[in-house]
This record gives sequence, structure tokens and C-alpha cells, in this order.
Amino acid sequence: MQKVFITGAAGFIGSSLVDRLLADGVAVTGWDNLATGQLRFLDGALKNLRFQLVRGDNLDLPALTAAMKGADFVFHLAANADIKDGWSHPRKDLEQNTIATFNVLEAMRANGIKHIAFSSTGSTYGEATLIPTPEDAPFPVQTSLYAASKVAGETLISSYAEGGQIDEAYIFRFVSILGERYTHGHVFDFYQQLIAHPDHLRVLGDGKQRKSYLYVQDCIDALLHVTHAHTAREAKHHTQIYNLGTAEYVQVNDSIGYLCAALGLKPKLEYTGGDRGWIGDNPFIFLDTKKIQSTGWSPKLTIEQGIIKTLRWLEANRWVYDSRR
Amino acid sequence: MQKVFITGAAGFIGSSLVDRLLADGVAVTGWDNLATGQLRFLDGALKNLRFQLVRGDNLDLPALTAAMKGADFVFHLAANADIKDGWSHPRKDLEQNTIATFNVLEAMRANGIKHIAFSSTGSTYGEATLIPTPEDAPFPVQTSLYAASKVAGETLISSYAEGGQIDEAYIFRFVSILGERYTHGHVFDFYQQLIAHPDHLRVLGDGKQRKSYLYVQDCIDALLHVTHAHTAREAKHHTQIYNLGTAEYVQVNDSIGYLCAALGLKPKLEYTGGDRGWIGDNPFIFLDTKKIQSTGWSPKLTIEQGIIKTLRWLEANRWVYDSRR
Repeated sequence: MQKVFITGAAGFIGSSLVDRLLADGVAVTGWDNLATGQLRFLDGALKNLRFQLVRGDNLDLPALTAAMKGADFVFHLAANADIKDGWSHPRKDLEQNTIATFNVLEAMRANGIKHIAFSSTGSTYGEATLIPTPEDAPFPVQTSLYAASKVAGETLISSYAEGGQIDEAYIFRFVSILGERYTHGHVFDFYQQLIAHPDHLRVLGDGKQRKSYLYVQDCIDALLHVTHAHTAREAKHHTQIYNLGTAEYVQVNDSIGYLCAALGLKPKLEYTGGDRGWIGDNPFIFLDTKKIQSTGWSPKLTIEQGIIKTLRWLEANRWVYDSRR
Repeated sequence: MQKVFITGAAGFIGSSLVDRLLADGVAVTGWDNLATGQLRFLDGALKNLRFQLVRGDNLDLPALTAAMKGADFVFHLAANADIKDGWSHPRKDLEQNTIATFNVLEAMRANGIKHIAFSSTGSTYGEATLIPTPEDAPFPVQTSLYAASKVAGETLISSYAEGGQIDEAYIFRFVSILGERYTHGHVFDFYQQLIAHPDHLRVLGDGKQRKSYLYVQDCIDALLHVTHAHTAREAKHHTQIYNLGTAEYVQVNDSIGYLCAALGLKPKLEYTGGDRGWIGDNPFIFLDTKKIQSTGWSPKLTIEQGIIKTLRWLEANRWVYDSRR
């Protein structure tokens, strides 16, 4: 990698990747529409002469193509990640995830850029019948607009790669990512509630949903480790798909326990009930991560450590709550 | 079914379904942009008072929503089926297959229509590792823009169904369909060549590609049999996926043999070489059809009979070649 283009560069994961690549001496162009990204996350990067930020939307193909010029690797991380409220704006997933990915691929094609990494999701397995779920699990039935749009993005990328338009395509199916600059998800919501009323916590579902999480710096390590190893170069398929997570999971109730212990609180818990937090929620997400671990990468933090890191960052950065209102 | 809405109603399969439903006493609204559909296929239907044709494009959501009013079942068959030339217009698959399917679902949602059947493709299995390939084969890597866009359509439909927007969704993964009104595919191409020069036939690939085919009236039987059986009503998932094909396959060379014998020709065969006919072609497509056969449906014609029926129809309808120029 000489010059990297990152979509969603002002986001949680994107800005963390920007900082890491700059520290590694790489030139980076960040692209973000700032719909959910935070300019503050790029405060450090913007002081670096090897970084430039271009504000733009993935639906604007000419601008995207122009901004991408000269890059040799694209990390496509921009997405509508508002999973819970998909039904209030179903076109958003189509536009910001599916059509956006198509435009990223067309911009790459116009610029002759042959390498891409893409942030997909473990939700693509729907309600998996095989847990822990491997990359070649049975062809799933999709249960959410978000996952459907990510599958659509995956299939576009692989069809470009298998069609000879891209030399190396890396698709990472993420579990939920936690850590510094985290701006949505259950830790975000729970801490927000506990700031407002430390004695009371409302929990979507029955609290028994089992989920896996990964600390953001472990996630960045994995993205760079796999793409530097060029595992797609010699493989039968130029598209390589990796589950990205830890080899453990926790219940929502475990997570509440970690948070409350760290905060010294004992709130009364109110459950909305049912085994799902929202329409399309999946009561058990646990990915088989043997494939990515076989490349030599492994996470450094446990889920509990990641949750506490997240909480400490939110405590020190309560401005992120105001920025979302 | 009281009133059925069919996208792609002037197409090969669409017009055959129109005629069958009208014969069954159902009211039908046909929708087609006439990009590849043939008005002549609807000559009979247009004489029936229970039929109306609305010319429109799936990208025009307001017109689609208006046309769909009053229907209680949608057969969504419209698609860009130009598989071979995907790389000359990659946006076409995105628009006419992915975005089109989104618009069909949004038009249904606006009209409160809760039942849909969708023509997907066996190509969604990519280069399947399991042959015959069952519906729950390993999560495949997509190898063509066409299949990618059909997977995207499938995932949209299932996310609407699993998200409670649709009561019954039937996704049929078709093998290649043959028979009366067939207007593209290898029999079409081969016969066209043999009209022009009966002594010479150019074959894409090495002729050893193994494919499965289904006769169009068997296909229509299957669509109606499964949707009338309401298999999605009581199932865990409101999305039911069925492979649709015969329990046999043939080589391209077998198919050439049937055609030449029927025509009394012995052309010199020229192979372009390689095990694929085009980028993204799959050298072996054979679907496991036990699931759909377990509903009580089975095909009446063999592949050979279907190929001969197709040839006889093309011989009697050489106008279709002119209509495509």
C-alpha cells in the first residue's frame, strides 16, 4: 500500500484506520459525507501532510472517482449502520450500502485500482443454523434490510473480483466493534440511559441475546494483517471472505454486569421482553474465526476488556451524545 | 389469487404465465417496459377483458405503485437477463434487477400486497462445491454481475418477508428455461447460426459445459403449484426458496446433437475453447430439486424434449430473430 483511499474515514472504524495507516507512513485520502462521521475524530490526522479529507457522498460517482485518483488500495467502510430503524427508511440501506458499493467499484474500475477491503457483517448469516458460524455456512435467509444490503455489497465486490476487474478483494464479516470513538450500539445506549437515570436501565428484549464483540484496535490489526498477507493473490477465488471476531460471546446481561460494576451502579432492569431487541435482531451471533486466526492474527483484548475500554472512552467523551442529537 | 400483477409480462416466461392465469380465470395486470419483451406474445391475452397491460419501467416507482393497485399477488419476473455482456453495462444489472426489486417491494408495501413470487437463478450458487446443489448449499462466492444482482433481489425480498412486510415470499432459483417464446440462450444462438450457415457452428467454450434446463410449461406449473400450496404460510421463515429444474443435466455437446439430428444437419463444430463460454460462466450447473418435488410437482418433459420443442417453435417463429436486431 502506497496510497490508501478510505470511505467512511470520519467514522468510528474509518478514523481509527486513518490514524494507524498514517502512523505506518502510508498516504491516506479520507472520504466521508459526514452524515454520521465526526470531524473531531480526524483532528490528529488533519495535521498530517500525508492525509487529505474529501467530503463527498458515495452516491456522487463523478466526485468519488475524482477523489479516488492515484490510490492503490480502497478500504470501503462507509455504510448506513442504523440497523434498528431500517423500516423507517428502507431506501437508505439500498442507497448508502448497495448502490454506494457499486459506485465504489465503478470508481475503482475507472481509476484502475485493483485492491479492496470491505466491512461486511456477521448479520449476513441471518439466523444461522450452525454456531459458531463459519464463512461457508449454509446459504442463509436474510432477516434484516441492513444485512441484505451488506450481502448485496459482498456479491457486487466478488462479481467484480471474479470477473477480473479486481485482483484482490477482502470481505470481512464483522461482529459488533467496540472501543474508542464508538458512537452507536448497546454500550452507547446503556451508558446514555445511566447518565440520565443511574437507578434504571431499559433493555431491549430479554437480555439473553448472545453476541460477540471485538475491540477496534484488534479489528484494525486484523484488516491490515490480512491485506498485507495478500491471501487473495494465490487463492482460487480473488475474493477472500473472513469472519472477524473473538472466539467468545457474552449475553447482553453479562455486558450490563460489566458496565454496572465499572460504574458502581445497581440500576433496576426493565426488559421489553422477547428474544429479540428489534425486528430483524438475531438472538445469537457467534462467528467461527478459525480462518482468520489461521493467518496469524488474534485479538489482544477480551470482550469484557473491550466493553470497559468503550465505557471509559464514553465517560471521557460525553460530547458524542450531544453530537448525535 | 384474485388479481395478479406480473412484472416482465411481455417476456418469455411472463407472457406464458399471463396466458395460463387468464385460462384459470384470474384477473391479470401485466407490467413491462418492452425493452426485451414482445407485444406479440400478448396478442391472445390482450383480447381478454380480464387482462390489462401497463407499459412502464420498474425504476419509475410512482407509476409502478399506481399500476399495482388492487392486486393481491405479485409475480416479479422482469429482469435484465443479458448475462454474457454484463461487463459492457454493469449498471444495468444493478438498476433492472436490484433497484427494480426494491421498487417492486416498496410498491407492494404502499399497496398492502403481501404475496410475492420471484424468479431468481441457479447461478446464485456461483461455482458450487456441492452438486447437485441444494438450497442450503454453502454460502457461495458470486462470480457474475447477473447472479450478484439476483442475490441482492433475493435478500431484499427475504428481509421484507422476515421483517413482517410480506406474508408469503417464494423465491425460485431457475435453471435455464426453454420452450415456446424463448428468445435468448444457446438454442436461440445455435439455430440462428445454422440458418445463416448450416455447415458450420461456433461454440463458446469447449462444449463440455454441463447445464440443466426446464421446459417453460413445467416452470409455470411449478410456480402455480407451489404458490397455491402456500408453503410459506406455516413455515418458520415467510421466505421459501426452491430450486426449480429437472433431475438431469446435459452437456452443450448433447444439446448440439439433439438440434442437429432434428434439423438433419452435420455442421463442422468450431470451439472457442476453455471450460467457460464467457466471463462468469459456470461450467457445471445442476440443482438438487428434491425440495420442490416434495411439494408434489414434477416436470413432464425431459431436457431433450424441451430442446426440441424450443427448436420447433423457433423454426415457426423466425420473426423473433428480426425483432432482436
